[in-house]
Amino acid sequence: MKPVTIVDTSLRDGMSSVSHQFTTEQVAAVARGLDAAGIQVIEVAHGIGIGASSVQYGFAAATDEEYVSAAASAVRDARIAVLYVPGISTLGVLDAVHQAGATTVRVAVHCTEADCAEQPIRYARERGMHVMSFLMMSHKLEPAALAQQAAKLDSYGAQVIYVVDSAGALVPSGAAARVSALRGAVEADIGFHAHNNLGVGVANALASMEHGARYLDGSLRGLGASAGNAPTEVLAAALERAGHDPGVDIFALIDVAERVMAPMMTEPQVIDETALLLGYAGLYSTFFHPAKRAATTYNVPVRDILVELGRRGVIGGQEDMIVSVAAELAGTIGRP
Amino acid sequence: MKPVTIVDTSLRDGMSSVSHQFTTEQVAAVARGLDAAGIQVIEVAHGIGIGASSVQYGFAAATDEEYVSAAASAVRDARIAVLYVPGISTLGVLDAVHQAGATTVRVAVHCTEADCAEQPIRYARERGMHVMSFLMMSHKLEPAALAQQAAKLDSYGAQVIYVVDSAGALVPSGAAARVSALRGAVEADIGFHAHNNLGVGVANALASMEHGARYLDGSLRGLGASAGNAPTEVLAAALERAGHDPGVDIFALIDVAERVMAPMMTEPQVIDETALLLGYAGLYSTFFHPAKRAATTYNVPVRDILVELGRRGVIGGQEDMIVSVAAELAGTIGRP
Repeated sequence: MKPVTIVDTSLRDGMSSVSHQFTTEQVAAVARGLDAAGIQVIEVAHGIGIGASSVQYGFAAATDEEYVSAAASAVRDARIAVLYVPGISTLGVLDAVHQAGATTVRVAVHCTEADCAEQPIRYARERGMHVMSFLMMSHKLEPAALAQQAAKLDSYGAQVIYVVDSAGALVPSGAAARVSALRGAVEADIGFHAHNNLGVGVANALASMEHGARYLDGSLRGLGASAGNAPTEVLAAALERAGHDPGVDIFALIDVAERVMAPMMTEPQVIDETALLLGYAGLYSTFFHPAKRAATTYNVPVRDILVELGRRGVIGGQEDMIVSVAAELAGTIGRP
Repeated sequence: MKPVTIVDTSLRDGMSSVSHQFTTEQVAAVARGLDAAGIQVIEVAHGIGIGASSVQYGFAAATDEEYVSAAASAVRDARIAVLYVPGISTLGVLDAVHQAGATTVRVAVHCTEADCAEQPIRYARERGMHVMSFLMMSHKLEPAALAQQAAKLDSYGAQVIYVVDSAGALVPSGAAARVSALRGAVEADIGFHAHNNLGVGVANALASMEHGARYLDGSLRGLGASAGNAPTEVLAAALERAGHDPGVDIFALIDVAERVMAPMMTEPQVIDETALLLGYAGLYSTFFHPAKRAATTYNVPVRDILVELGRRGVIGGQEDMIVSVAAELAGTIGRP
């Protein structure tokens, strides 16, 4: 059995928790610590993906190339990865970050839209990059249907295919079932990316690993959209306690979590009402801050906004619906 | 299959996180909210157990009888429970809280010391109380050996026997194995009490339930010793997402978690270095604050204290060892 590879996404998914405001110095410090702890893949740059720095998704404190370059210069062994979201990211930006030192790309598509990943996957493979691909909001498809989408990514050349629980809506049995289905359908390695909205992020990663996933995402102190991710240092300790080799130095990971990341966090990752309701309703984790803002702006309970968005089954890319729903509810509820 | 009963221990285990300083008004407000959400058993009073208010364990803001009375007066349907630790609690105190309105007692012993529970279990049963019993630090015994201890509690008349993960050192497979072993050995119902040090508190409770546990402990927002417990509101949502009936009103639970408990918390429950190391080293969760204090007092890294305590295999009741070890390490490391 090949050992598990923990991928740390503190500097990408975690960017969402700090409004994409990490400095390149902070990125270098975290990357250096992760590398020293034996983390093999470090994802960096704008939280929504490369090329996302904009009015729509928020401007980051540095360019994607600057972030990648800062991380690449700080590490000795780790590979630097970036997130590529078709419709937001472009091949030109991919070239630029590849040039700056990113050697892994993670192409993320909604779980029913594997087709959209073909172009960037083939493009990146041709240029010798290590290519992973994300099936986002994986809770929305039953295991067999998800495996069909994974088979497409496999045929395009993705080397690792991820079950991504973007909403934090899966429980361990659901994560395990999806990973198992993918294993039977693809040649590629399988990965799992957790969110902790139902409090089972670490357990979902553990169950995925025990059902054949070879790549597990985490972030230091759980930093990430909404309720956050599986905390990398906790995941590593739990893997070891469960009898597996986490392949990293747990004490060194704790050092970077406690002494580098924790002081940089603007707020701790907790499962508050909004985070829990996102998982319960199966909504995209990046809706967390926009939903809270809309609730304040329109003076509507965040719960009503999230329940209505859940009813409408909205997915990533439909962030404009948050404001629409809040405005509608304000018209009905706010001014009766 | 009988439905699961969620027991909320915010007002007992959670007391440890606020140095036992909740007022009777706060206790009443939380109990009222939990009762309205359909929680059937609410544990209250000093975090270490009834009768623990002292120099050794910290003085509480009110007496155990006052806490019990405040909670009992605030609820319509819920039973009020207290924790009884032989060696700390006494039968006289049990009589007093019974008189004040506690109808359930949870007799907690170290997992190898079931014998110590006989007297209070028989005493409480004779007086018509509902009797649960805790096997603390359950990770320290293999499932078969734990089941032997459970069989003793069963013979004394305990109506619910708990696998208690006092250190937060279990992963779901370990929790499930212990619950399964107990099921085969006792007539009593089985319960599970989680701590979240390895990030798998909710998942351990879920796995326990799926292997036959009928009572699951939680606390609002996870408030509890060290990394805290399974957050009650998150556990309920996860149970429902896993296809089970949590038997409570999830939105009402979120209301009390978000609007009553969260504003009362002095700090959020996060898995920091100390909390993670307690779970990793398998140390009693109530060592959390004392270990941090000893580290500061003796100017010794908390990590060194915890690793050494783990090496010595100390258990609950040996809190004096925290200071001893810190002092010893200060002699060796602090003044080289």
